[in-house]
Amino acid sequence: MTDAETLAERVKAGDLRLYALEDHADADTAAAARRHLLAEELDVDLETVGDYSFPADSAESNVENLIGAAQIPLGVAGPLPVDGEAADGSVYLPLATTEGALVASVNRGAGAIRAAGGASTTVLERGMTRAPVFEVGDIHEAAAVADWVRASLDRLATAAETTTNHGELREATPYVVGDSVFVRFVYDTKDAMGMNMATIATREAADVIESETPASLVAVSGNLCTDKKPAGINAIEGRGRSVAADVFLPTEVLEDRLGTTAGAVAEVNTRKNLIGSARAASLGFNAHAANVVGAAFLALGQDVAQVVEGAHAITSVEARKDGLYASVTLPALAVGTVGGGTGLPTQSEALEILGLAGGGNPPGSNGDALAEVLAAGALAGELSLLGALAGRHLASAHAEHGR
Amino acid sequence: MTDAETLAERVKAGDLRLYALEDHADADTAAAARRHLLAEELDVDLETVGDYSFPADSAESNVENLIGAAQIPLGVAGPLPVDGEAADGSVYLPLATTEGALVASVNRGAGAIRAAGGASTTVLERGMTRAPVFEVGDIHEAAAVADWVRASLDRLATAAETTTNHGELREATPYVVGDSVFVRFVYDTKDAMGMNMATIATREAADVIESETPASLVAVSGNLCTDKKPAGINAIEGRGRSVAADVFLPTEVLEDRLGTTAGAVAEVNTRKNLIGSARAASLGFNAHAANVVGAAFLALGQDVAQVVEGAHAITSVEARKDGLYASVTLPALAVGTVGGGTGLPTQSEALEILGLAGGGNPPGSNGDALAEVLAAGALAGELSLLGALAGRHLASAHAEHGR
Amino acid sequence: MTDAETLAERVKAGDLRLYALEDHADADTAAAARRHLLAEELDVDLETVGDYSFPADSAESNVENLIGAAQIPLGVAGPLPVDGEAADGSVYLPLATTEGALVASVNRGAGAIRAAGGASTTVLERGMTRAPVFEVGDIHEAAAVADWVRASLDRLATAAETTTNHGELREATPYVVGDSVFVRFVYDTKDAMGMNMATIATREAADVIESETPASLVAVSGNLCTDKKPAGINAIEGRGRSVAADVFLPTEVLEDRLGTTAGAVAEVNTRKNLIGSARAASLGFNAHAANVVGAAFLALGQDVAQVVEGAHAITSVEARKDGLYASVTLPALAVGTVGGGTGLPTQSEALEILGLAGGGNPPGSNGDALAEVLAAGALAGELSLLGALAGRHLASAHAEHGR
Amino acid sequence: MTDAETLAERVKAGDLRLYALEDHADADTAAAARRHLLAEELDVDLETVGDYSFPADSAESNVENLIGAAQIPLGVAGPLPVDGEAADGSVYLPLATTEGALVASVNRGAGAIRAAGGASTTVLERGMTRAPVFEVGDIHEAAAVADWVRASLDRLATAAETTTNHGELREATPYVVGDSVFVRFVYDTKDAMGMNMATIATREAADVIESETPASLVAVSGNLCTDKKPAGINAIEGRGRSVAADVFLPTEVLEDRLGTTAGAVAEVNTRKNLIGSARAASLGFNAHAANVVGAAFLALGQDVAQVVEGAHAITSVEARKDGLYASVTLPALAVGTVGGGTGLPTQSEALEILGLAGGGNPPGSNGDALAEVLAAGALAGELSLLGALAGRHLASAHAEHGR
Repeated sequence: MTDAETLAERVKAGDLRLYALEDHADADTAAAARRHLLAEELDVDLETVGDYSFPADSAESNVENLIGAAQIPLGVAGPLPVDGEAADGSVYLPLATTEGALVASVNRGAGAIRAAGGASTTVLERGMTRAPVFEVGDIHEAAAVADWVRASLDRLATAAETTTNHGELREATPYVVGDSVFVRFVYDTKDAMGMNMATIATREAADVIESETPASLVAVSGNLCTDKKPAGINAIEGRGRSVAADVFLPTEVLEDRLGTTAGAVAEVNTRKNLIGSARAASLGFNAHAANVVGAAFLALGQDVAQVVEGAHAITSVEARKDGLYASVTLPALAVGTVGGGTGLPTQSEALEILGLAGGGNPPGSNGDALAEVLAAGALAGELSLLGALAGRHLASAHAEHGR
Repeated sequence: MTDAETLAERVKAGDLRLYALEDHADADTAAAARRHLLAEELDVDLETVGDYSFPADSAESNVENLIGAAQIPLGVAGPLPVDGEAADGSVYLPLATTEGALVASVNRGAGAIRAAGGASTTVLERGMTRAPVFEVGDIHEAAAVADWVRASLDRLATAAETTTNHGELREATPYVVGDSVFVRFVYDTKDAMGMNMATIATREAADVIESETPASLVAVSGNLCTDKKPAGINAIEGRGRSVAADVFLPTEVLEDRLGTTAGAVAEVNTRKNLIGSARAASLGFNAHAANVVGAAFLALGQDVAQVVEGAHAITSVEARKDGLYASVTLPALAVGTVGGGTGLPTQSEALEILGLAGGGNPPGSNGDALAEVLAAGALAGELSLLGALAGRHLASAHAEHGR
Repeated sequence: MTDAETLAERVKAGDLRLYALEDHADADTAAAARRHLLAEELDVDLETVGDYSFPADSAESNVENLIGAAQIPLGVAGPLPVDGEAADGSVYLPLATTEGALVASVNRGAGAIRAAGGASTTVLERGMTRAPVFEVGDIHEAAAVADWVRASLDRLATAAETTTNHGELREATPYVVGDSVFVRFVYDTKDAMGMNMATIATREAADVIESETPASLVAVSGNLCTDKKPAGINAIEGRGRSVAADVFLPTEVLEDRLGTTAGAVAEVNTRKNLIGSARAASLGFNAHAANVVGAAFLALGQDVAQVVEGAHAITSVEARKDGLYASVTLPALAVGTVGGGTGLPTQSEALEILGLAGGGNPPGSNGDALAEVLAAGALAGELSLLGALAGRHLASAHAEHGR
Repeated sequence: MTDAETLAERVKAGDLRLYALEDHADADTAAAARRHLLAEELDVDLETVGDYSFPADSAESNVENLIGAAQIPLGVAGPLPVDGEAADGSVYLPLATTEGALVASVNRGAGAIRAAGGASTTVLERGMTRAPVFEVGDIHEAAAVADWVRASLDRLATAAETTTNHGELREATPYVVGDSVFVRFVYDTKDAMGMNMATIATREAADVIESETPASLVAVSGNLCTDKKPAGINAIEGRGRSVAADVFLPTEVLEDRLGTTAGAVAEVNTRKNLIGSARAASLGFNAHAANVVGAAFLALGQDVAQVVEGAHAITSVEARKDGLYASVTLPALAVGTVGGGTGLPTQSEALEILGLAGGGNPPGSNGDALAEVLAAGALAGELSLLGALAGRHLASAHAEHGR
């Protein structure tokens, strides 16, 4: 009987709790015990799940009740030349996905961008948000608390920044609805995606608001952050990085690489991405930015639930005499190169492919560069799919590559 | 020199294209060659990326330019008792994530649900959508095409269903904006998530529209589908499965398991999930449904970009004399148990943990059950986070578990 | 002492209630008494307010606590040639407004449309909605109620139609959120805007739902109607009339009448009405459709609060070799030619200017024609403002005409 | 032959243009000529339309092609006691409407508020907006222009304020989408609603941006203002006045005045105004705020098309042991007491009823007070309708009062 089997027996006997196995064995053994237990109880085989390459104990900051790993096929698209503020040079973009044709699509778009001399990128704004909600006595009190917050940024910053070495509080904007006061805190979290940093810092700032005003904290997140829900506030004001990429594709590149014309792409973009999204009451005006964001997030240790914010992208194109101007703007891309899943082995290797593992110099530059590369990748994906749609190839492409 | 090294040299020499290596070697060797090339060119180590457990050739329907795998830590939450229409019994929910505290949070919610006797679940509607956009001459023609579509469902169904053994066309609803006509096709795709099935079938139906009316296809997707963009149309009319879960938590369960009261949870839900989301112009009225949907999608071979639609969830609670009624409704959860990433080894094993790998009997029942289980999981996550917020523990919980 | 003065004294003495004066005098005297009371109490002069042209007693179905009338300046724009399904011919559009330059703007657009040979119009869909919300025990019950509703349209129609001579129930679509069931009833209300008809009919249908299912009515309107709130559901599915107008303006008309070019207008429309509205998280993709809808609603006895739904318009344009294609689509225009304010003297005269006072033959045709005329008017307004913006004249035009 | 008839003949003869009659006669005669022309051509009677009480020439800043007036029945609701920052005391609220039961409904709510001791009100923020859109060369240039704008508020204010005696530029926030740069200018326009003031001032500021940066103006309004379209940006960040009103209704007031209970109202508000609006993808979470805003706008010389922004209201309630807390928050109420239609006779008299005609002392205080009074009126309307719905009276109330 292995150690894992012994542990599993103790759980079955009610002697140990499933989530507490790490208190009684190393993390690998605890995970093996859980697999053993599930395998027996459910009569399933968990062999490949148990075949993981990260040190189980180091994953404890990423997951609980570990049983192993999900493996997602990883491909690369590129080279993709990026002329950005923080990113500069040609990259291979790692994409983890199970959706056939996606990497090929981005790769095709990257080829077009390459032929056009590269994409330009820039981070327009940065700021991770957290917005607690407070209860007050009535609207007069709400107005007074809002005024106090507007006048007290320095004091709130001092409190918030006691909790972090890197984060800086940039804004604290109050919003009132009846006897609820929301305060949207915006932090520069440098190379970290920063949601936890923002949450912890906000808790301190909220304490100050509670002690200096009659406001009483209801929840450290009041959904004006807005985290992991589609929201106008993020589409408008941004969250994480607001980033854009653009390119001008000469007519011959459009023809050779994408098999289409500027006019045809412009018509698809207008009718689908602008008018179609408008009629759908959508908060995303793009073809499939979430596909690229999702696959890159997976590959690079980002938080996949934040694909939601990443989907608030607007793709614009303009047919010109000698080609096509195209851009994609992602107002709310939450990315980081430290923390979260970025330190896990496969994720770290994928970041290394981009040369962006760990903190940047200066701080924040790696986060910026990652945002820029993803924007360029999203642009590649948009160009490829718009081109394919313009050529009516979508279904047949899926028929060949997908299932 | 290994075969992979030889291939890599040929790519460097311009003799082969990176994406075409599978034409010259088996898939494992092609992936190794790509890793070799990247490792040399970028001076990086891709050891763990290359340590994957799936047969590389079978991943060809999931990815292109394969270099290996991303490994995401996989945990389980449960047991989670589910009293559904398709799902019935107690399950361990596999969750792949890099966000510390998430599995623990769902696990804690599952404990509360278990103590309350289990969650009820039901699939309210099912239908994968695809909405091509057509161009017409003017609005009179647009009206005529829309009328033709409304009168021709049978004919469109016959055409669409030639392309699929399982899919059934249920609706084809026209929407007109000026000289653009969008037709939203809704399919029952049984146990498949069905987006590709819907795309291919729609292409056939679009051919009929083009041949029978003056409409000319602009794009097989006109964004009224809406795929992978946040959209009112999905939040309202649904996409994939519309599914709900609910539970009544007696007062003592709230206290013992969540350390809170019905009134406190109701206040958090109203001020955060309802009023906060309202003021944020959000299309998601929940605490963190996307976290559970995202982690489960990753573990179970679903399309992670569709977390976007999954985030359109509404959480409702009601404080009652003897406890708390709580529900979560996900109008647009796109799931499947066949196709996509479901056949990959770790994903298939994770589906086996739920007893839901492959097609159901009757067809569609496994897809329904998966949707129900995820709804119950989302409910567990909501209860746990709302409870934690009510108790003001969020930041400290993250401080302990996360980074 | 006049009768009105006597009444006023009795109110001051606490002998009569302000709202009950019509029980003690004719309507004109009651209104005079209220003016007298206010004039004395507040030391104000209400002379012009008291100078109204409608029979006060006939206004009792329109207002309570009558003191007189608000007078809004009324102008006409036109002639505006309309080639519609229900409307046909050239009309002068009555517009009541206090916003200088508005009538001139529509008039200028009408001139351009006239020079182009007229606008085409069509009603795409019609249906006034009312959506009660019911409470049920849990989600299983919710699903059962929803199924019952889907299967019981005939029965619901029979009940609903007992309350109306003209209205017909067309659809009853259930939407479930946890233990709330919303049913969106859609009626053909012919020439009436129909909101009250729909409310009364829905009350009967709701009674049937309550008696045949476990559902309990919470409110006869559950906001999925959606009445007088901006809402995706109306922008997508429509409410009242969904109507569109379009026109092709040859290059010389653009130059002569609007002083601009197709390319310039297209650029303004794309950057402002499509991309700008997208970034604003707007549910209206137009320049100022609400201006025309609002002024026409005022003139023609419509419900001004429904300008909200009227603002969900999408303006599309396309620059072509020889001119500009332009359309405006209003998915949710709530109009009627009978009921509401349509029978008041000035409103009735304004409807006569359009030849659309009273019920149409066949029933509904006057309502359709009114919707079409308003769509053509909105198109005229869009063309004029887009042209003016393209020519950078907006501010100066306002400086001249407005204040 | 009267002068008007002579003018009409000259128009018919093609000698004069319909819109140019004021160049050849006084305004009353010009309007009479137009009526004569329409009456003859269309065989209609325009007697009541011609019966107006304002000096026709003074209406030239409000309308063009004048033919007379639309008369809207005007009632009052109240007294409504308001404890605000700018408004203080009990008022009769003038409401012009054709929707039977509306004034009665507000009156009933005012009675409840009165019995509870009055409503509290406060203006949370003020700022009329205008957001031009500029074209730039690419995203790098877009970022540079945005940076320049952020650093140049003083300079932009100096330019903008050359055009106005009262307006002050408060903010100028850039938003980038690809090669489009939007700048949202926010002005304190004191007692004027201020849209025209903002437009004219923005034109000057835009000139500075054009001269100092490579940006080229496309349109002085780029729809991020957002004027007269429903928009998240207004619902979140406000436009005009952000204003709120609240009240606590003791249990006996709820029973006596509204015939309902705190729990029943809370249930209606949650299921209808919060959950229903959520599922409708609405940007308005209220029962019928637009009704009150619309009727008051009409009566008081406001711009009725801005009812659209006024509809972005959130109504919150909380059932407490001894009664009901209720609030309504209108983030985007565009009001003024000078300019627009406020100077017309009936509108001016209606403003006098509130004691708010003309500019306030200090400037802006009348505008604030008007916003507060309307918020209190909206609260009265919400309470009345929520109470009626809770009591299931809506349809029957309409059946009695309306048509």
